[in-house]
Amino acid sequence: MEHSITTPWQMIKFDGSTFNEQEDEIVTETPLTIRVNGEELATVVCSPDALEDLTVGFLAAEGLIRSITDIEQLNVNEDRGFADVELKVKKSISHDYYAKRFISSCCGKSRQFYFHNDMRTAKTIMSQTRITPEQCIHLMKELFQSSTEFQKTGGVHNAALCTTDGILVSRADIGRHNALDKIYGHCLREKLNMSDKIIAFSGRMSSEIVLKAAKMGVGILLSKSAPSDLALKLANDLKITAVGFIRGGQMNIYTHPERLIMQ
Amino acid sequence: MEHSITTPWQMIKFDGSTFNEQEDEIVTETPLTIRVNGEELATVVCSPDALEDLTVGFLAAEGLIRSITDIEQLNVNEDRGFADVELKVKKSISHDYYAKRFISSCCGKSRQFYFHNDMRTAKTIMSQTRITPEQCIHLMKELFQSSTEFQKTGGVHNAALCTTDGILVSRADIGRHNALDKIYGHCLREKLNMSDKIIAFSGRMSSEIVLKAAKMGVGILLSKSAPSDLALKLANDLKITAVGFIRGGQMNIYTHPERLIMQ
Repeated sequence: MEHSITTPWQMIKFDGSTFNEQEDEIVTETPLTIRVNGEELATVVCSPDALEDLTVGFLAAEGLIRSITDIEQLNVNEDRGFADVELKVKKSISHDYYAKRFISSCCGKSRQFYFHNDMRTAKTIMSQTRITPEQCIHLMKELFQSSTEFQKTGGVHNAALCTTDGILVSRADIGRHNALDKIYGHCLREKLNMSDKIIAFSGRMSSEIVLKAAKMGVGILLSKSAPSDLALKLANDLKITAVGFIRGGQMNIYTHPERLIMQ
Repeated sequence: MEHSITTPWQMIKFDGSTFNEQEDEIVTETPLTIRVNGEELATVVCSPDALEDLTVGFLAAEGLIRSITDIEQLNVNEDRGFADVELKVKKSISHDYYAKRFISSCCGKSRQFYFHNDMRTAKTIMSQTRITPEQCIHLMKELFQSSTEFQKTGGVHNAALCTTDGILVSRADIGRHNALDKIYGHCLREKLNMSDKIIAFSGRMSSEIVLKAAKMGVGILLSKSAPSDLALKLANDLKITAVGFIRGGQMNIYTHPERLIMQ
């Protein structure tokens, strides 16, 4: 089955004055686990198309193959999320070696990870905090004003911990995840309560960003950018209010609109 | 020593009609290797500030700590790029476990990786291909016209393999790296010569994007977005022409301007 790289999502649009339920087209996000000679090498979170190209390109970029003739067989099972590769040379992938090289805070996690491991630390959000659309717009504006680096370079992402009244602490980083990790670390070091707070974020809302918010215990996630479908499914399950495309006085409320004060 | 998260870079600006040498302010990109109880856990590529917060947030997000009291000691050596953490519980990090969980195509690689392992596959570019600023602008325009998904969702990155005349193949993905891996894989599968081609890219030019271009053997990297300093240092060393901020009829030529036809 060929998956589409976009999918419809029912959301509430705020157009500056009124709220209207409508359908939005969002990107699909899916994990692909690459196995080489029967061993799990990596899980890449990706858009579900051209997965054979992705697998071959990934192996080449990581130095495991030099040309297509190094591959004996390549089978992608898109529904199950696996790419199985048989290399002509049957050497074993050294996990010690690759573990050190590839470990990252950024994206790929396995399907199992999402639905088992992460649930150890991600918890359903009970936050009673509510927010008006005007407050969402104000916080996003304050986020960008706080970032002199972005204005200078255009090269960083910003994350901030907020109350409905304003930003408490904001951090910038070239990595989306790092910016949020810096906020998380700050809260833990300063022993700040996170569960009544709001996160404002400049980057796209992928599944890992939602999981990070859930681990922090934050119930409202505001972003200037687009969400993925996996992010929204997780936000739905974990009871996080995900608001995207906050720009030009408008916004899209994708999940748990009960935390939005609509009047 | 406190590092700045931005740094000056001497570049050539094309303003639509003339080329002028001037200084640009770009983001700093630096690898931070996190060691827990003496074992290497992860290397995060990040902006060099709030590294204690980043380390604590990373450990919490990965489920290794629940509160700051789980940490016995935390030392960040910014110059050497290490964060050393002693946890109160002296359990060993299972590499088998974490290897499977965290492996990714996206960001964190160790300093060693950049300057040793990657050099196995990344090669100095000998490409003789040259390009005019008008062709750069045209290719970037074509890249965005090719991406119906971006126009629908705002949630994907685009990468394309091009000649000076136009796009040969373009790919979209929620991950910047994946989009480029899909192009790389396509070229290998179709046995396309890459060394006389150009890459047009919607995302930011980080060090890994430059390394990927180098592995492909491509000499000209065009981007709509900002570069990092580490990316430009690598582009300089690997003889890649990096052109950023191609928008509004303008562009910044950061490295190896000899491939730009300026007349």
